[in-house]
Amino acid sequence: MAQDVEPPSGTRDFLAAEVRRRERAFAAVRAAFERYGFDPLQTPAFERLEVLTGKYGDEGDKLIFKILRRGEHEASGEADLALRYDLTVPLARVVATHGNRLPMPYKRYALGPVWRADRPGRGRFREFTQCDIDTVGSTSPLADAETVWALHDALVALGVEEFRFELNSRHALFGLLDAYAVPEELGGRVLITLDKLDKLAPDAVTAELLDRGLNREVASGLVADLAGDDPDRVRKQLDSTERGRLGLAEVDRLLALTAGLPAGRVRFTPRMVRGLDYYTGAIFEVSAPGFPGSIASGGRYDGLVAALGGPDLPACGGSIGVERILSSQQADDTDTDTVGLDVALTVLGADTEAALIGLAGRLRAGGLRVGVYLGASGKIAKQLKWANDQNARFAGLLGPREHAENVITIRDMHTGDQEQVPLPDAAAYLHTRIRGT
Amino acid sequence: MAQDVEPPSGTRDFLAAEVRRRERAFAAVRAAFERYGFDPLQTPAFERLEVLTGKYGDEGDKLIFKILRRGEHEASGEADLALRYDLTVPLARVVATHGNRLPMPYKRYALGPVWRADRPGRGRFREFTQCDIDTVGSTSPLADAETVWALHDALVALGVEEFRFELNSRHALFGLLDAYAVPEELGGRVLITLDKLDKLAPDAVTAELLDRGLNREVASGLVADLAGDDPDRVRKQLDSTERGRLGLAEVDRLLALTAGLPAGRVRFTPRMVRGLDYYTGAIFEVSAPGFPGSIASGGRYDGLVAALGGPDLPACGGSIGVERILSSQQADDTDTDTVGLDVALTVLGADTEAALIGLAGRLRAGGLRVGVYLGASGKIAKQLKWANDQNARFAGLLGPREHAENVITIRDMHTGDQEQVPLPDAAAYLHTRIRGT
Repeated sequence: MAQDVEPPSGTRDFLAAEVRRRERAFAAVRAAFERYGFDPLQTPAFERLEVLTGKYGDEGDKLIFKILRRGEHEASGEADLALRYDLTVPLARVVATHGNRLPMPYKRYALGPVWRADRPGRGRFREFTQCDIDTVGSTSPLADAETVWALHDALVALGVEEFRFELNSRHALFGLLDAYAVPEELGGRVLITLDKLDKLAPDAVTAELLDRGLNREVASGLVADLAGDDPDRVRKQLDSTERGRLGLAEVDRLLALTAGLPAGRVRFTPRMVRGLDYYTGAIFEVSAPGFPGSIASGGRYDGLVAALGGPDLPACGGSIGVERILSSQQADDTDTDTVGLDVALTVLGADTEAALIGLAGRLRAGGLRVGVYLGASGKIAKQLKWANDQNARFAGLLGPREHAENVITIRDMHTGDQEQVPLPDAAAYLHTRIRGT
Repeated sequence: MAQDVEPPSGTRDFLAAEVRRRERAFAAVRAAFERYGFDPLQTPAFERLEVLTGKYGDEGDKLIFKILRRGEHEASGEADLALRYDLTVPLARVVATHGNRLPMPYKRYALGPVWRADRPGRGRFREFTQCDIDTVGSTSPLADAETVWALHDALVALGVEEFRFELNSRHALFGLLDAYAVPEELGGRVLITLDKLDKLAPDAVTAELLDRGLNREVASGLVADLAGDDPDRVRKQLDSTERGRLGLAEVDRLLALTAGLPAGRVRFTPRMVRGLDYYTGAIFEVSAPGFPGSIASGGRYDGLVAALGGPDLPACGGSIGVERILSSQQADDTDTDTVGLDVALTVLGADTEAALIGLAGRLRAGGLRVGVYLGASGKIAKQLKWANDQNARFAGLLGPREHAENVITIRDMHTGDQEQVPLPDAAAYLHTRIRGT
């Protein structure tokens, strides 16, 4: 196929079945968030360029789609706008813009496309949907707990059957660094390295810690504690430092507040680090069999809204990797996405058209999905093939003889059975057959 | 407010009430289109630049938002992508891309944002939602008729009470030019001038026709026929030429096929011209009291898909000015958009949190919308104010005394009545009070 009829690299056209499957999933997620009192927010596709630049690090900045200035300024080759890169920076901007109009704490969900000029690849797109909840303006641990609960319910609503929240706390991690007397200035980078324990062998992580400037005893101790994945061993270490005790209290409170979730759904996972340095409290990732990475993640990031240009408000939230989940389900249920017609009406002569469109109107007024044959063939076999292709439940045949007698032949497309019905009764007949009323 | 916290010029943030109002309207429109067998299509926000340029005329081209090339090419100041300007060019591209996978005729609806760098103004935005249906691959007049019916139903679903389809045909218009022996090469421009009869006085239109090169007799005759808005007078003229008779037949067939719509909803309006030169058959605009322009429009454009880069297929369709309709309704129904909480749970001590979140979980599992107080105040009056601000139907009060007795106080926020309920029965009690089950 010629390159010039393809959608742009890294983007997708969604035809009917895919739109329906995606919208059904999104509706389920929205309904779950709504039950938690999160409110929807929609922001523009683009923001002023300066709102986005400098927020995603050097690598992120390179992936921002920038929009050329217009009119006389186009020739400058400069950009003044950019497509949103995530839903978090727009949230910070909205809190700055509409602060007074927003309820506080402000609980919002956002579900919509973002754009990143990443190299397109298997399951990696330049236009993809993000799905976030955030609570701005609350320091309550209940806000963290409700984030976990709401994401849990949304994952269930998406049809993910097995999954687990791996729970930790930034304070716990810093407590561990305290326990091993890791110098404060190395802390952040040490955590970034420790975050690789789920991908690299313990020895490789130890080696990287040595490169970072830790001595062998400290590096080995940290790796042994975390790679061992033994919460009790780590609990003992944490109990020995102030930040560790604070972190442990955070974890335990969140464990208590999520104890009502099905058994095994939330677990203290000391090696879960999340290298992103904007987290300030509880953190979590959701792992699930069959998914190499996490399918959801989040935590508390009390400084983030201010750092992104909003007011200085505490916040916590999380995000579902909804594209990842949708991709994994793709093969399963394409069949159920074909929405067929309830009734397909054939057209066997121009003089029947007005009668047919009148019948179609009555059927649609009752909520049925009705198609009228719009092709060029006057042959009944071709039109029945069309009805079949449309996955129609019933076909209506109104030939010259039926028209003369003011009846219509109704064909059950599953059984092939046909029945003649007076035309004025056809709508009621079909409603009864289809809806049982 | 500082300029740098505003959304970009011509764009809007939609907070909860607006999102709900818009999504409710869009859902109603989608449901109407679905009943006609139109299928949803979603295309990327941007297309390759060359897919868009040259499709909207010189003025349109200037309003396209262009996206700067990335990485090493960014410095070139060149664009390679552009935000979609309408939903029609992407449709033509999709028909070219996915032709084999699409049912033919292909009936699709699209409802989504488009972007135009127009000067922002009252009711004019740079990001706004378009709402289109199109049928590609059918020459059947039934396709034109179904376009009118489907748009009709969608307008009703949007709550527009009074409106009328002003119906005409490009052939009828050309027939009129034939009747007055207007030279073929002047035809297009004469129609563009005649299209101004709904804005300019007849004399001004006559003057412009003289400028176009018509003689006074012809110009006056055309203006008298059309401005008079007398279909019978025009019918006589049309009957005198071949193209006129063809156009009249087109109009009459469409009138017959839409005769089932409520009386007065469709009218032959000979002065309705639609200057856009891509129309090839029936054309229509929808006028409504209170709206200066049209709230919907469309027609048959058999050459358009090919002209826009798709295969050579006949097509017809229409579009609803959904933003215009939404703006007109803005003031009316803000109150009904406030989705309150079913239950607001106050938090009067950390030791009650686990019990509260457990109760919240049971209520949400039953589909209720439940909020838990996340603010900093431990005072019951402040928390009840929060419950009230959240438009809560009931509040749950679980103070130390209630906690000790394993009960909860349920307050009806409308009446102020309070009742004590054993905590284990609270979910069932509230479900019954709210849902009656």
